[in-house]
Amino acid sequence: MSNSLYHRPQMSPPHVIIVGCGFGGLWAAQALRHAPLEVTVVDRTNHHLFTPLLYQVATAGLSAPSVAGPIRHILADQRNTTVLFGEVRAVDLARRLVRLENGDELAYDYLIVAAGTTLSYFGHDEWAPFAPGLKTLEDALEIRRRVLLAFERAERESDPARRAAWLTFVVVGGGATGVELAGTFAEIARHTLRGEFRRIDPHSARVVLVEGASRVLPPYPADLAMKAQLQLERLGVTVWPGRVVTGIDADGVSLGAERIACKTVIWAAGVAASPLGATFGAPLDRAGRVKVEPDLSVPGHPEVFVAGDLAAVDAVPGIAPAAKQMGRHAAKNILRLIAGRPSVKFKYRDYGQLATIGRNAAVAVIGRVKLSGFLAWMVWLVAHIYFLINFRNRVVVMLDWGWAYFTYQRYARIIIRGMKSR
Amino acid sequence: MSNSLYHRPQMSPPHVIIVGCGFGGLWAAQALRHAPLEVTVVDRTNHHLFTPLLYQVATAGLSAPSVAGPIRHILADQRNTTVLFGEVRAVDLARRLVRLENGDELAYDYLIVAAGTTLSYFGHDEWAPFAPGLKTLEDALEIRRRVLLAFERAERESDPARRAAWLTFVVVGGGATGVELAGTFAEIARHTLRGEFRRIDPHSARVVLVEGASRVLPPYPADLAMKAQLQLERLGVTVWPGRVVTGIDADGVSLGAERIACKTVIWAAGVAASPLGATFGAPLDRAGRVKVEPDLSVPGHPEVFVAGDLAAVDAVPGIAPAAKQMGRHAAKNILRLIAGRPSVKFKYRDYGQLATIGRNAAVAVIGRVKLSGFLAWMVWLVAHIYFLINFRNRVVVMLDWGWAYFTYQRYARIIIRGMKSR
Repeated sequence: MSNSLYHRPQMSPPHVIIVGCGFGGLWAAQALRHAPLEVTVVDRTNHHLFTPLLYQVATAGLSAPSVAGPIRHILADQRNTTVLFGEVRAVDLARRLVRLENGDELAYDYLIVAAGTTLSYFGHDEWAPFAPGLKTLEDALEIRRRVLLAFERAERESDPARRAAWLTFVVVGGGATGVELAGTFAEIARHTLRGEFRRIDPHSARVVLVEGASRVLPPYPADLAMKAQLQLERLGVTVWPGRVVTGIDADGVSLGAERIACKTVIWAAGVAASPLGATFGAPLDRAGRVKVEPDLSVPGHPEVFVAGDLAAVDAVPGIAPAAKQMGRHAAKNILRLIAGRPSVKFKYRDYGQLATIGRNAAVAVIGRVKLSGFLAWMVWLVAHIYFLINFRNRVVVMLDWGWAYFTYQRYARIIIRGMKSR
Repeated sequence: MSNSLYHRPQMSPPHVIIVGCGFGGLWAAQALRHAPLEVTVVDRTNHHLFTPLLYQVATAGLSAPSVAGPIRHILADQRNTTVLFGEVRAVDLARRLVRLENGDELAYDYLIVAAGTTLSYFGHDEWAPFAPGLKTLEDALEIRRRVLLAFERAERESDPARRAAWLTFVVVGGGATGVELAGTFAEIARHTLRGEFRRIDPHSARVVLVEGASRVLPPYPADLAMKAQLQLERLGVTVWPGRVVTGIDADGVSLGAERIACKTVIWAAGVAASPLGATFGAPLDRAGRVKVEPDLSVPGHPEVFVAGDLAAVDAVPGIAPAAKQMGRHAAKNILRLIAGRPSVKFKYRDYGQLATIGRNAAVAVIGRVKLSGFLAWMVWLVAHIYFLINFRNRVVVMLDWGWAYFTYQRYARIIIRGMKSR
């Protein structure tokens, strides 16, 4: 692809590049829908991912397409917008262009970087092969493969110790993702697989949730976090707060002196900001996020904005609603600048936080209201189906969940690449 | 896993091993449901695959779980049956045991081998990396990935010749699978992707179906095959019968002197019997299928039966209904032998053949009745939804298809591993 492709005639409308089409990028693009601009959305996947339900793909409750929508299709009718399948490797603030994975350069007049986060093993990348995390569809399918395969291996294993290791699942990290995964793994072992094996009892599987802090769901109020832990334990999860992982290998997890022999470890402990943030030369916080101005622009570059998890803004959590608000705000500020008006400060509207734990179990903070158990779970259910990106997915997900709820089955129990590796 | 696992006490009921849980193996297992036997089903995947709809996964119309059911779940209530996730590498007829991928050996009293077929490049395995075939879910997802990625690459390609190559799709082989894939690729290019690209016109994509014989669908009556070709051409497929592929590489396909420059080639030209057939020391036909006795047993081994595509039986086509009938028949013969009665000859009941071509287009032969066009398509639709393995899949598939039919959309348009390779 030659750069001439990106050469734009004089007097053409301002060109806005949006890097990343997660919640931040997609909401930014849609806020520019009717603007007299050229918009280019660059993403390294062809789909917008509904990450709040990604754990359902990892736990075989939903198929990959149910939580992902083709970006081209979502933005097809937005005539001022071009979607590019590619990966932005660097941003050149001085020359006002972004560099793609193949060296191509795209010039911009305004830039919104919503590249989000990547997995972080806190300097222990050697753990990665033994403890996949959950960021992409590929990750979710790999976790699904390992968990389902573990029960198959246990069924064929005659040595009691090795069998127990195949039936032990450790989730590292007690945040929302870790809690969701651990709770659902326990449900799979206790309900979904009941009566399907002849040599093992899936019910005997052990699910351990390890959290470094003193309790799960640190960002939540202490009483709600305690309720979450009780609900997890009721579902059959062993919750180990205040434990720090010191080692992960093919045969287990080390927690200082303690050791858990297990064949399946899931990493839900940490993320780091996209490396793109470092290319700005702007100050970063400890997580590598860009310390943006109150209007979300990069210091010294009013034409460049950062939205979503890559932006460090005080008291704004790393959740989908925050990313959407930032994306929309960055877009609005670009429209203001083009209209010759000053950009405005970003204000986060807190609609609350929700974390699901498992069947009939969740916790929610909505304003001053704190919910847990079935009621919180219903709120979670309705909210997530409502916010699913397109109508069709909503219908399929509702059907899948209705079926799953009453049958305890999980229809996506398909091992891809089963015979390969491990 | 130690062999002791498989040691069975004296006086235990006869042990039947079924190798492969496709249509032959699954129907055999279910026919033994209430028999006083121990049944072990061995499959190298964890799912029974509804292969007649696999092309829909490859063409982004259905998700992988929609056409696959977990074998354990399907057979969970069959108390005399154990499901083993493993790959049978060899059969030792003399010692009456099968050897698994890890060297474990399982002893049998009766054996049903329903291992089916694998892809065959007719001695040109060097073509495989450039022309994936369609046998497994992995194959289907790889084809989906390449086809969707080709349009993305074309959108980013400025060189007209290279762009045209990305927009050219060659399907090698005009049997049912080749016809289904070619017809659906054309629909994707003409309808599904309409209006979603800014630099290319997906409608300009070229889909070429190459068939060595003088017409597509060789097993069908000549007049129906001609109708199929006309319907394909109406959908926008270029049909090239009587052309033999002499080369496939990263940049195109050679047909003797002719050359098609293309980046995406799908192999639907041939299959060969599973290599397991060769381990019997029994006579094989040209396709490597086992020449079984009229009762489907292996010559000289009345306790060993072959069912499905691996069995060479005159005038029995390699389609799902035939495999089901053979599987059921092999099981019935084992029950007769155990009851001290002689096995009986297999008789194939021909319920007809169906091939779909695309929206409103199909051909069908049912007894003396020949159908084509919309009516044949409706018959195909009803038959395939009816025969889908479990109720839930039926509902989801109907929903997906109803939605797809009216919107022209295909919801599984998700590229997995998009940035990796190619």
